[in-house]
Amino acid sequence: MNKINIGLIGCGTVGAGVIKILKNQNKLFSKKFQTEFKIKKVCDKNSAIAKRMKLSKSLFTTKIDDILNDKNIDVVIELIGGTHPAKEIVLQALRSKKHVITANKAVIAKYGSELFKEALKQKKNIYFESSVGAGVPIINAITEGLAGNTFKSLYGIINGTSNFILSEMTHSLCTFADALSKAQKNGYAESNPTLDVNGMDAAHKLSILVRLAVDKIIDVKNIHVEGITQISHDDIKYAKDLGLVIKPLAIAKTANNNLELRVHPTLIDEDHPLASVNGVFNAIFLETDPMGDILLYGQGAGQLAAASGVVSDLVNLATKGENIACARMKNIAYEDRSIKLKQIDQIETKFYIRLLVTDKPGVLSKISGILGKHDISIDSVNQKKQKKTSSVPLVMLTHLAKEKKLRIALEEIAKLSLVKSKPVAIRMENL
Amino acid sequence: MNKINIGLIGCGTVGAGVIKILKNQNKLFSKKFQTEFKIKKVCDKNSAIAKRMKLSKSLFTTKIDDILNDKNIDVVIELIGGTHPAKEIVLQALRSKKHVITANKAVIAKYGSELFKEALKQKKNIYFESSVGAGVPIINAITEGLAGNTFKSLYGIINGTSNFILSEMTHSLCTFADALSKAQKNGYAESNPTLDVNGMDAAHKLSILVRLAVDKIIDVKNIHVEGITQISHDDIKYAKDLGLVIKPLAIAKTANNNLELRVHPTLIDEDHPLASVNGVFNAIFLETDPMGDILLYGQGAGQLAAASGVVSDLVNLATKGENIACARMKNIAYEDRSIKLKQIDQIETKFYIRLLVTDKPGVLSKISGILGKHDISIDSVNQKKQKKTSSVPLVMLTHLAKEKKLRIALEEIAKLSLVKSKPVAIRMENL
Repeated sequence: MNKINIGLIGCGTVGAGVIKILKNQNKLFSKKFQTEFKIKKVCDKNSAIAKRMKLSKSLFTTKIDDILNDKNIDVVIELIGGTHPAKEIVLQALRSKKHVITANKAVIAKYGSELFKEALKQKKNIYFESSVGAGVPIINAITEGLAGNTFKSLYGIINGTSNFILSEMTHSLCTFADALSKAQKNGYAESNPTLDVNGMDAAHKLSILVRLAVDKIIDVKNIHVEGITQISHDDIKYAKDLGLVIKPLAIAKTANNNLELRVHPTLIDEDHPLASVNGVFNAIFLETDPMGDILLYGQGAGQLAAASGVVSDLVNLATKGENIACARMKNIAYEDRSIKLKQIDQIETKFYIRLLVTDKPGVLSKISGILGKHDISIDSVNQKKQKKTSSVPLVMLTHLAKEKKLRIALEEIAKLSLVKSKPVAIRMENL
Repeated sequence: MNKINIGLIGCGTVGAGVIKILKNQNKLFSKKFQTEFKIKKVCDKNSAIAKRMKLSKSLFTTKIDDILNDKNIDVVIELIGGTHPAKEIVLQALRSKKHVITANKAVIAKYGSELFKEALKQKKNIYFESSVGAGVPIINAITEGLAGNTFKSLYGIINGTSNFILSEMTHSLCTFADALSKAQKNGYAESNPTLDVNGMDAAHKLSILVRLAVDKIIDVKNIHVEGITQISHDDIKYAKDLGLVIKPLAIAKTANNNLELRVHPTLIDEDHPLASVNGVFNAIFLETDPMGDILLYGQGAGQLAAASGVVSDLVNLATKGENIACARMKNIAYEDRSIKLKQIDQIETKFYIRLLVTDKPGVLSKISGILGKHDISIDSVNQKKQKKTSSVPLVMLTHLAKEKKLRIALEEIAKLSLVKSKPVAIRMENL
């Protein structure tokens, strides 16, 4: 029987979930994996936790060094989140010859290269399944399950809060504010939901996935990110009329060593599997070569979902042994330097455009003339009927258009006296 | 740089796909996995293949022993299919100290225990991702990605031919025969499609998944299997009216150490993610503890899809090294003997029942009387209008009912003079 001694740093909801799962699965794991997973020490700065979770005095500490300096601890589970002191803890754990498991997307996205390098030097392993999609085995699928494939593109619903809000706005026809407040009431959104709704959370996760799938190391600052706060009811409704839904997507595409990365609300066909991923569920759609299209779908948030990913990491660490650490870290740290990041200006997508225009003859000709001048051709137009107003919404779908040209065209259109409000443009993907 | 020498036995479409992928990915794999995958020998009984695939004389052989006796070969890829001589080849490869990769569901389903035992003895590994769902990483997800979970239930669309036929019948409203012929024309069905449409192919795959997910070793003979040949257009249409679709599901459920296994066409809600898995696509829906619901979806057939799974196995074998063979084989070979298989008679499901009855007052009361006598309560009834006939279809959905009681009730109902054709019953799952 193997024995894995664990030091758990940060004992919030996920940490408590890990303790709970290990307690419940203890017997099964002993039999199936011939391994005893023993939590040797739990560290949290909040000493009230020990009492609340009924942890014995010898098990609990508020001092991180009690774990990092304990030679009997084989693996450190870092669950404090954020970049500092998480980074320093992970580095010190590796230098103290301990494997590391973390659910911390920020530290992996920002300091991954440094941490993987240290792990390689120390011949130790870092596992981080729960950093993206909680326990949905996305990272495992990319690095192992689909190891024989290259990844042409990746479309991820990887922020549960945004997806919950847009799903609510779509299905209950409520406002953004109402949907957010419902998300907070249900525990699906932080009291400060900024990083979720502005897309930065998804951008961090995307950078992790891109490193693994496309072998490109990305600074999140270089990802074009738009949040979901600008999405209006009207757009959701008009999209529906067109057989489309708006989803908060993180997108990566590669072609000829060019990589395009972006996080923004995106229109997709309502029949696509991603369209039916609602609520806090996460999903990732991969276009792979040679395997073709793959979808993974599951609960991307919640105490036990995240804890499940951490425990799966533990089992993999235990069953695969120490010897694979170097090969795995080399594989994960590998970078293909020939891949260049495309600027958002150069990107081509289809667009949904909504304008509020004066209801007069000649309007459409003027607008389509400006679009045409910038090489943007229109796929469909729909002028919405509106009672008692002199202005009407005009909804258009374009064919593939260059982002930069579209922006210039819309600026020109916005200046027309017959256009009554700021034009809205939402990118569309043909999946 | 590691070097993995490969002996490929059976060079049909999947084998040719493996050769093609390794050629294309050679450079990437060297850089990313520091491993050179070298096909040292290809064996096929059909010597014409060497010419067709332009394989050199030194690379090709018709003698299996040229591979099994070659001490420089590290891994044997078995792609001949069927149980014999595949089983003997796998055993001999292991005894010759070679790892084995196979896409052969029959040999793993039937002789898995014996093969895993031998692998453990020889400290070698067997990988078999492509035996279920081709390259969709189902096996990897169950054994590794979700390693920290227990599996409460599993619902799989794991036979592409059946799924293609039912999808065609549903969406193009064609007959079974037409759909089958279209499947054959597109290369989605064998010229003899018996094992696909009668459910046995799915049963073999289910037994493999159940071994891994539930730790129970199952003889396929003990799985209740029904094919899709009895499904009529009427049922597809009436199901649609009820917001349901018919899918060819392989089902495993566990509760209190009881395991229920069956393969049959099943009614599910049209909004469930599995309902939109159409054509030859495969998918698997897992109810896990604590992770919750997980769906994996992808192309479950085709040359490159299956070859992709084999190549992923190769990469995993190479990067995880030899040392994990024993732990992995022990984990896979582990059986929980406390789990008992439920007989189909004892199973409870909801049912869709279709009867052709005389259009007279009192019919419903008589039929519901018989069902009630056998503890089967009705959830909804729909009497279909039909012109110019004295008989009308009667469609009912039941609440949960015991399989055995339902069968007895239907036998009784079939004997009524007012019932004009054999009653149809299709199980329904509330996913």
